[in-house]
Amino acid sequence: MNNFSATYTDQYQLAMAQVYFKKGHKDHQAIFDYYFRELPYNGGYAVFSGLEYLLEILSNIRFTDTDLEFLKSQAFEDDFLKYLKDFKFRGSVYSSQEGDIIFPTRPVLQVEANIIEAQIIETILLNLLNFQTLIATKASRIREVAGHASLLDFGLRRAQATGGYFATRAAIVGGFDGTSNVLAGKEFGIPVSGTMAHSYVQSYDDELEAFRDFAAGRPKDCVLLVDTYNTLKSGVPNAIKVAKEMEERGERLLAIRLDSGDLSYFSKQSRKLLDEAGLDYVKIAASNQLDEYVIKSLLEQQSPIDIFGVGTNLVTGDPDGALDGVYKLAYSNGKPRIKISESIVKITLPHKKQVFRIKDDNGKCIGADAIALSNQERVMQMFHPFEPYKSMELSKFHQEPLLQKVMENGEMLINKRSLQDISAYSRERLSELPLEYKRFNNPHIYKIGISGALRDEREKLITTYKEKLK
Amino acid sequence: MNNFSATYTDQYQLAMAQVYFKKGHKDHQAIFDYYFRELPYNGGYAVFSGLEYLLEILSNIRFTDTDLEFLKSQAFEDDFLKYLKDFKFRGSVYSSQEGDIIFPTRPVLQVEANIIEAQIIETILLNLLNFQTLIATKASRIREVAGHASLLDFGLRRAQATGGYFATRAAIVGGFDGTSNVLAGKEFGIPVSGTMAHSYVQSYDDELEAFRDFAAGRPKDCVLLVDTYNTLKSGVPNAIKVAKEMEERGERLLAIRLDSGDLSYFSKQSRKLLDEAGLDYVKIAASNQLDEYVIKSLLEQQSPIDIFGVGTNLVTGDPDGALDGVYKLAYSNGKPRIKISESIVKITLPHKKQVFRIKDDNGKCIGADAIALSNQERVMQMFHPFEPYKSMELSKFHQEPLLQKVMENGEMLINKRSLQDISAYSRERLSELPLEYKRFNNPHIYKIGISGALRDEREKLITTYKEKLK
Repeated sequence: MNNFSATYTDQYQLAMAQVYFKKGHKDHQAIFDYYFRELPYNGGYAVFSGLEYLLEILSNIRFTDTDLEFLKSQAFEDDFLKYLKDFKFRGSVYSSQEGDIIFPTRPVLQVEANIIEAQIIETILLNLLNFQTLIATKASRIREVAGHASLLDFGLRRAQATGGYFATRAAIVGGFDGTSNVLAGKEFGIPVSGTMAHSYVQSYDDELEAFRDFAAGRPKDCVLLVDTYNTLKSGVPNAIKVAKEMEERGERLLAIRLDSGDLSYFSKQSRKLLDEAGLDYVKIAASNQLDEYVIKSLLEQQSPIDIFGVGTNLVTGDPDGALDGVYKLAYSNGKPRIKISESIVKITLPHKKQVFRIKDDNGKCIGADAIALSNQERVMQMFHPFEPYKSMELSKFHQEPLLQKVMENGEMLINKRSLQDISAYSRERLSELPLEYKRFNNPHIYKIGISGALRDEREKLITTYKEKLK
Repeated sequence: MNNFSATYTDQYQLAMAQVYFKKGHKDHQAIFDYYFRELPYNGGYAVFSGLEYLLEILSNIRFTDTDLEFLKSQAFEDDFLKYLKDFKFRGSVYSSQEGDIIFPTRPVLQVEANIIEAQIIETILLNLLNFQTLIATKASRIREVAGHASLLDFGLRRAQATGGYFATRAAIVGGFDGTSNVLAGKEFGIPVSGTMAHSYVQSYDDELEAFRDFAAGRPKDCVLLVDTYNTLKSGVPNAIKVAKEMEERGERLLAIRLDSGDLSYFSKQSRKLLDEAGLDYVKIAASNQLDEYVIKSLLEQQSPIDIFGVGTNLVTGDPDGALDGVYKLAYSNGKPRIKISESIVKITLPHKKQVFRIKDDNGKCIGADAIALSNQERVMQMFHPFEPYKSMELSKFHQEPLLQKVMENGEMLINKRSLQDISAYSRERLSELPLEYKRFNNPHIYKIGISGALRDEREKLITTYKEKLK
């Protein structure tokens, strides 16, 4: 699934590219910043996801002959189509690592390439990074509240068509343990698991017989769904009978699953029945419209739930439909570039840049990233990007440069990690962030500043354009 | 993109299928209902989408050799894997037509197949129909308020990864005219269009020169983005200069695009400037966080906008992340089946069924669909599905059967229509629905009832299971 057509783009990228081509701008070098403006979920951080997948796509993306035929039918010109026939992304990418925690305004990634290549890849870059970062962030929030419980992605049926495949990938980056999605499991090496559906139990005349057959068929990972008819009067007692029969065969029932009703009440009652039957090893799985708030509440009520299956709210990123990531020109043809706007927060930052994470002597984040020009090695003082009188002294802190060159001439420079490794890295980075940035209600605001040199460069450009308009 | 692996499913489908296989249930015939419980957007109707695409998938879906190897590594057994090697969907599908308006509780589609096939396709069926129905419904709401304006899908960059491709398909079903998504345009025969990005204008030292080059490159569909620096002082005056130069060459500027600021104010001011310059034929396109409410308000303010580009809120279905469509067993192995629940609205409807749309003598919907047993030709009286004392006389009305056989033995029985034809059908069906069901605030509730015969069958099953639990 990593063989994408370069037509996975917006038409205007190609329209602009053709103009660049015809006007002889095709070798103009450009730098674009990828960043977002608002944290999802009113949260305190986001988890960057999609990078390693994107880099694979970028190293493979091409126009096929049928793509070019289609573009010809769309009035693109022959000399330009001939150029596209040899299209390949040959640029460089500077980026935060996948799994790192990221914050608004600061470049998360920079693309440096000729302007045609940089423009054609914009759409797929935004498409893959925005969505996976949204879902990894959601998953990370759920992981934060779930303690030692297992977290499984059950979302494919409510996912946005094939977007579900990417949702699963991002869920693992954010801290989930496994998925029900067989294809994603196969492609990404993710542990795949599942239980049974109500339809399975319904298809039998008798719940006990249904459970028995299932245990016989899956003795090593048997999970019985206990709420088809009546959880405490029928489902759990039948599961206990089957668990006892399994014991006689030297097997162990892995878990029961609750999928309706008050999960706190039913998990406690079920735990009691299981324990009374000597089945303290049988786990309890729960599903049904879960999200970080419900799971937090269930665990605060000391609900004995060991496994959470999370579906719709995970894979759709509900209640936020999208991360508002953008891709803005910062430099082209030897000159810094800027977009002016009536609203100062929409004015872009010119030039190639570096971003520093500010840390104390113990390696803990102090809650600030500083954006600098790429040739700055440290930032002594950072300024609020939009409020000129706010600044912060940084000279006494450690400064970790965040943007690393991860692609050069269209070739990946980093080794691909497993999703589990990316996830472990993400958890480690998150552990450097103080708790006040992780709470759900009014989290502390992580500071993003710009260096004096960058601020001055931006001011110069704004002044130039204001002069022009007079 | 219609070659899906049968591993595009939840693991439990395969776990259950293996049990059915081993227990000799593999030829048990089953009937599943696809339906949803709540209308999205607190709206009065939904638009069914995804069917024709799904049927193509179902007629092609297989397990590849690498799929089977993967399943072997997941502890599936050899004899079952051998069976899966020849897997093909050989069932029948009875369905409402794609594009029809649909309502909660009533089956939108029924699958009749052996229980293994019916179970394995559940996930992809839900995945494709839930999402496309959600987005077609959103698109239809936007179409309802947009009058004669053109509606373009600009959402790919904020879409849920490759889900964006399906969002575009569904947007056309719901009433959109075109898309920026080149791949979707190519695959589905959708008109593709686009304008230019701010980065294009920024990449020039001079906005006027940027506009000139673009007009030279795309003389037939030139749209100029006028808000990079200053809409009224720079963008529109430069666009007017270029439009005049185009006139001298016998060309016409198609449109200008506004992407920020107060779209009502700027569209009126821009219209005035264009008209004063004799450019009354130049259209105005607008984009930036649009949805049905914003477009309705813009048009109520008489904003002279001819083209709306809708992105994030269309393709993500915001504010609703998903349609809650489910797939429930109604019949298997010669017996009607039911799922009991503490909550009556979650009790399923047994048996193979038909659904009738109730209409008056003029072919207008009276606002009711009646669910019957499949052998009933008419419904004389329908009952509220969950409130036993509510009923409605139907004998004097026309009754249109909604579920048609669209697939038999895994082969499509209907001719594939273009998306534009599906869309036209959808608009026609929507025109049969009175306005009170289409308003945004507290729309009138469309009635769904069940026939007396179906109600009695359900009661019988509930009684049987309650007896068992005593």
